[in-house]
Amino acid sequence: MITDINTVFANKMDGKELTVRGWIYRHRVGSAGSMVFAVLRDSTGVLQATIKKDKVDEKSWTDASEAYVESSVVVSGTVKKDDRAPGGFELVVDKFETVCKGEPFPIAKDLSEEYLLDVRHLWIRSQKLTKILQIRSTVIQSIHDFFRGRGYTLFDPPILSPNACEGKMTLFEVQYFQDKMYLTQSWQLYAEAAIFALGKIYDVAPTFRAERSKTSRHLAEFWMAEMEAPWMELAEVTEVAKDEIKFIVEKVLEKHEEDLKFLGRDVSKLKTVVSKPFPTITYSEVLKILKEKEGMDIKWGEDLRTIEEEKVMTHFDTPVVVTNYPVEIMAFYKPEDKKNPKTALCFDMLAPEGYGEIVGGSQRSLDVEDMKKRLAKEEGNPDDYSWYFDLRKYGSVPHSGYGVGVERVVRWLCGSENIKDAIAFPRTMNRNKP
Amino acid sequence: MITDINTVFANKMDGKELTVRGWIYRHRVGSAGSMVFAVLRDSTGVLQATIKKDKVDEKSWTDASEAYVESSVVVSGTVKKDDRAPGGFELVVDKFETVCKGEPFPIAKDLSEEYLLDVRHLWIRSQKLTKILQIRSTVIQSIHDFFRGRGYTLFDPPILSPNACEGKMTLFEVQYFQDKMYLTQSWQLYAEAAIFALGKIYDVAPTFRAERSKTSRHLAEFWMAEMEAPWMELAEVTEVAKDEIKFIVEKVLEKHEEDLKFLGRDVSKLKTVVSKPFPTITYSEVLKILKEKEGMDIKWGEDLRTIEEEKVMTHFDTPVVVTNYPVEIMAFYKPEDKKNPKTALCFDMLAPEGYGEIVGGSQRSLDVEDMKKRLAKEEGNPDDYSWYFDLRKYGSVPHSGYGVGVERVVRWLCGSENIKDAIAFPRTMNRNKP
Repeated sequence: MITDINTVFANKMDGKELTVRGWIYRHRVGSAGSMVFAVLRDSTGVLQATIKKDKVDEKSWTDASEAYVESSVVVSGTVKKDDRAPGGFELVVDKFETVCKGEPFPIAKDLSEEYLLDVRHLWIRSQKLTKILQIRSTVIQSIHDFFRGRGYTLFDPPILSPNACEGKMTLFEVQYFQDKMYLTQSWQLYAEAAIFALGKIYDVAPTFRAERSKTSRHLAEFWMAEMEAPWMELAEVTEVAKDEIKFIVEKVLEKHEEDLKFLGRDVSKLKTVVSKPFPTITYSEVLKILKEKEGMDIKWGEDLRTIEEEKVMTHFDTPVVVTNYPVEIMAFYKPEDKKNPKTALCFDMLAPEGYGEIVGGSQRSLDVEDMKKRLAKEEGNPDDYSWYFDLRKYGSVPHSGYGVGVERVVRWLCGSENIKDAIAFPRTMNRNKP
Repeated sequence: MITDINTVFANKMDGKELTVRGWIYRHRVGSAGSMVFAVLRDSTGVLQATIKKDKVDEKSWTDASEAYVESSVVVSGTVKKDDRAPGGFELVVDKFETVCKGEPFPIAKDLSEEYLLDVRHLWIRSQKLTKILQIRSTVIQSIHDFFRGRGYTLFDPPILSPNACEGKMTLFEVQYFQDKMYLTQSWQLYAEAAIFALGKIYDVAPTFRAERSKTSRHLAEFWMAEMEAPWMELAEVTEVAKDEIKFIVEKVLEKHEEDLKFLGRDVSKLKTVVSKPFPTITYSEVLKILKEKEGMDIKWGEDLRTIEEEKVMTHFDTPVVVTNYPVEIMAFYKPEDKKNPKTALCFDMLAPEGYGEIVGGSQRSLDVEDMKKRLAKEEGNPDDYSWYFDLRKYGSVPHSGYGVGVERVVRWLCGSENIKDAIAFPRTMNRNKP
């Protein structure tokens, strides 16, 4: 029977004999060559083990004293309370078996970010990346649980698409037998077809945008959690988005408070997010705040840049929903708000602390002629969208949807500097290996 | 308050006033133009509604009598027990509002398969496809629940890969900024890196193979549910696969027995699957069965073709795990079974009733020199895999994994003739629209 390392740290474990298996995290030979101090790691945590030369057999001593960092091992011993050990307990070893000694591990301290990306397949073993990837797993589980709990059906969109959804500039082209196809930029057009069959739907799926910007917020391949619902208008869909984000933060705090602290995250800021309602304001109100409180004069009609999003969010300690951006700068499927002309029935959700946009969504236009005109302006070919326009021709209903950037949420929750750390194998303009 | 249609069919609903919304499924004007019989559908089911001209206002009558199939509607009325109505209840309408009348729906009976694929964005509204897609959603939910229940962490692999995993023949090439990349054929190589950090992992993700075969079993874009676990050998991983498949069938039966019957599925065959253990046999035993019981003489060393898989499965009424295929015809990462030379520590799971392979997996080779030799035979370049071989260099451990073909399982459970019906927007060599 093998014990997970994280279950060792409890008073009732003191004196228990057990076996753990994993990898050497730190290794030091001490006491004039008669003792080895090894920190073992598995996916659940780290545990200090002490091996005394005169207390173990010869094979165990050889294995323990010659092991490298990242050698794989199976270790048996007795748990002992020891306040000096990390976590307050250590393992006094009876038997130490190296499964694969291997070679000296190439990752030490103070290596460049680029080198660590080159050896990403090894670097993900670091405590930092392991914990972030575990939090990511919980984020995605929470998304499934949230939507399942509300009666949504999972709908997988096609990844290979003959159409652009978010503009031709960021398309990746695929040689598809004799044809050209594109990697999906969003599930949206297909999701709009599926709601007529399945009702409220959601998915978590990979998404691709050939972003040329080298920011800490953009990946070329990322995962989006999207939802789409018939009979739903803007006011309702923004509330669903708020509930979803709050649900995710709650679940991550429940399960990963210690991990977040390890990552240096100020957990109190996330607790504030859970405890307070998220405001909804309009784009015009954002401009007003920027002008009155920050002295920034943004012309109505311009898109908000990172700096403006950051500045306005210094006045909030929860995510904020911003609605009614200028319709002129919005994608063709975001309809004008007839009650607030020149603005669209759309929204973004901005995260606090400068983490920027984490959700984007809208009510969907039902006006085919208007969409065709706007597509033409975006240099899209309306003929490519004839199947999409069919959805307005046969039993059209008001509907809305949004997408959550999974890595953006993970980055915000973990307080990571760069979005690359929110995914195991990042893909950007300058990074496609391993 | 809106009522889901599937909640109407219960005795306690008799006499209740309620509102449903959805689309017209069938429509007929009867009784010399004084009555409309409409069947309404939403994502949960269908309900017969009767509209009498002298019992509703003029607008309701106009809307009801002029509606097309697939017009979107909101309908209020009183539930009435009526044994002639499908499901035993009908809605006697007080108010009928057409939200979008639209145009006459282009799908009627007896249309060709190709036409129905051309209008797939509309055809998914059919009762058949809606139910299959709902079952698919349950299959995927079950996969998440199964692995979460066993402490697995979700790990998202990169979709864009610089490497081939399952042979160069079926790769889709992507123009990635200035480079060429490939769409993933399997998460496996990356998953093997991730188990060192995360332990037992799983995912459900899109997978791409440029299959040129026009069979009812192959898609160019499909979803695979994969798992990988450290410290796990072949005997254990085959049991995990059996437990997973049994779990999925159980959950689908629990939730969708009526849907399966609607699809014409013989549900008793699936109940048999749940009630009995799945056998494990070897490839050599398959040849023996084929020879002794079917008079088919397959030369040891040849791969099993569809016809052979079908023939051997006529002797079983549950899925069967087949292990120890000839190592010669296996991918480079499947190790030889030292106890059964010339065979590999690998397995497939075959579904009963001729549905073929639904799972494929193996223990993973730890022998870099052997893998390099075999890669070279497959015309792979070992240099491309240097990062993968690193995993054997630093703390290697025995490990195993497998992939479940989501559409293959859905097809089997639903008893669908073609795998195209197990996904919303199928992609094959000859089909990439809409």
